Amino acid sequence: MNLIDYPRWPSLARESILNVPADIRNVKVNIDGRVIDYSGEVDSVVITGMGGSGVVGDIVSDLCWFWDCKVPIIVSKNMRLPRRLSKPLVIAISYSGNTAETIMSANEALSRGYPIIGVTTGGKLSTILSNKGVPVVLVPKASAPRYGLPSLLYPTLIILERFGIASVANELESGISGMERALKAIDEAERLAGELLNAIPIIWVGESRRGVGIRFKNDLNENAKYFAIVSIIPEGAHNDIAAVTTKQVGLRHIAIMGPNDYEGRYLETLLDVVSSFGAKPLVVKLEGSTPLESEMYGVTFLGITTLVLAHLLNVEPISTLPIDRLKEELDKRKLFPV
Amino acid sequence: MNLIDYPRWPSLARESILNVPADIRNVKVNIDGRVIDYSGEVDSVVITGMGGSGVVGDIVSDLCWFWDCKVPIIVSKNMRLPRRLSKPLVIAISYSGNTAETIMSANEALSRGYPIIGVTTGGKLSTILSNKGVPVVLVPKASAPRYGLPSLLYPTLIILERFGIASVANELESGISGMERALKAIDEAERLAGELLNAIPIIWVGESRRGVGIRFKNDLNENAKYFAIVSIIPEGAHNDIAAVTTKQVGLRHIAIMGPNDYEGRYLETLLDVVSSFGAKPLVVKLEGSTPLESEMYGVTFLGITTLVLAHLLNVEPISTLPIDRLKEELDKRKLFPV
Repeated sequence: MNLIDYPRWPSLARESILNVPADIRNVKVNIDGRVIDYSGEVDSVVITGMGGSGVVGDIVSDLCWFWDCKVPIIVSKNMRLPRRLSKPLVIAISYSGNTAETIMSANEALSRGYPIIGVTTGGKLSTILSNKGVPVVLVPKASAPRYGLPSLLYPTLIILERFGIASVANELESGISGMERALKAIDEAERLAGELLNAIPIIWVGESRRGVGIRFKNDLNENAKYFAIVSIIPEGAHNDIAAVTTKQVGLRHIAIMGPNDYEGRYLETLLDVVSSFGAKPLVVKLEGSTPLESEMYGVTFLGITTLVLAHLLNVEPISTLPIDRLKEELDKRKLFPV
Repeated sequence: MNLIDYPRWPSLARESILNVPADIRNVKVNIDGRVIDYSGEVDSVVITGMGGSGVVGDIVSDLCWFWDCKVPIIVSKNMRLPRRLSKPLVIAISYSGNTAETIMSANEALSRGYPIIGVTTGGKLSTILSNKGVPVVLVPKASAPRYGLPSLLYPTLIILERFGIASVANELESGISGMERALKAIDEAERLAGELLNAIPIIWVGESRRGVGIRFKNDLNENAKYFAIVSIIPEGAHNDIAAVTTKQVGLRHIAIMGPNDYEGRYLETLLDVVSSFGAKPLVVKLEGSTPLESEMYGVTFLGITTLVLAHLLNVEPISTLPIDRLKEELDKRKLFPV
């Protein structure tokens, strides 16, 4: 099994944080005579990015259910920023630095005068922001954006720490332990992938682990070329579950179980009901002693599972031809002004 | 074809707004010596609710891409309210009034001292809020929560108008025209439903019509007992689309096309790429001269389509046995403190 960059994840996490400016709160950027001051008060954090870069926002949002982050985290996956922000900090994440949607959002943030920080391996985003004196965290590369996730996530966590949004420093090592633990669970990943062969997965996951569910779906899409459904609990208990009596074929239920708290017991109950209708749900327990550890365990373990699945399906995991073709076609039609 | 309550939607919309207090900005509620003043400034609107009630938040959120609403709309589908809200108005929507998650959220809003308004047909939510002097909009009933959508949506729009969040009054009638237009398109709904037989639908929809996509999925779940995937553009262009080369079988692509703006052209390009890989996507155009009209056309037309699909599948559309069983089981295990 080729694990691509997964064995490098612990080192990607560690290396990626070296480029976060220690004095980021002292930054003052002068754009066309208007000063954007990074020492000012922040009343929300907008994390803007797409796909493998955008999932960083989902993961941070998950962690903030546990960490009691000081301001709301707004996840934006769009070319437009949310409206009516008051005093946001914008973190614009684009692995390649060439994601048109994220560059458009970053430009909008600049024109609105918000403090913004880029996290990227380079590209246009880096050039545009650096040219204006806006801080950019340059991070190490991987074989494709999704395989470089720790390079994008860890600097984002450090930024949250520097801005006093969340106290993350104590948990960073535990997150790496989560990755290492998952790298030892290849046998389990192989068993799980085998169960997903010739199926359309329905992923049940609690609200506080939403990012793990979305990332699993994305990895299924990109590595295994698999469509999958993500149903977030409790909302999915009010609609998706009604379809468990379906006449559709080929579905396979899989649940991502977080801590055995209120939400966990809700999901357990839901799985019992799903089972009572004849489905046999698979269960993945998120192991770890801290929120970051179990989150990173889940993301890594399920990512590796999708690589195994690609292998079993005899599909090439790295290339994503339809995404490439769409980008070409959008360029050809001049849809993006960047 | 039994259209259940759909033919009543125009009258449900009109009747449901009669109970919205005209003087809602003058309300002052005294709870344990603390005064909650509804005339104060509001810097966000949280719409909390689940399933058929929760989708009201998604629809309002869609409309606010067009309407330039004065504050952010936060859609909450959970038993916990989002953290770190500053001066929110909370609209708690529960069709039955007995949705445990929404009651828990409403109680949290009260304990945090936020102005809150209930929208419901009655139930515990109505009792709890009324007993404290909190305004409740009582609305007419339907055969099940999802068939009463206009009863929940229209009062919410009026509340936004009264609070100066959005100027909706001019569009209310056009929304009803959208419903009526969809009720005349039964033949088209029948054709579309026929195309979805024995399939797992993949619904492509732009961010500004996200609510129409989610509602279509929910109606597929509940009426036709069908699982379905919703992929929001542009985000889905960075992951889901990679799976179009899949070896999975039984998938059927369907796109909901909003206005022919930037997002619309993006979605069109995506469909061309999907087609170039051999899929034959179905397209539903949202017709209407205002944002509310095309939104309501889409919600109504696609809802009726799922009723036709249920009919073709010979499944009973109204009952949702797994949801009932889950509620019983959650009650039995005393998971909800309400």
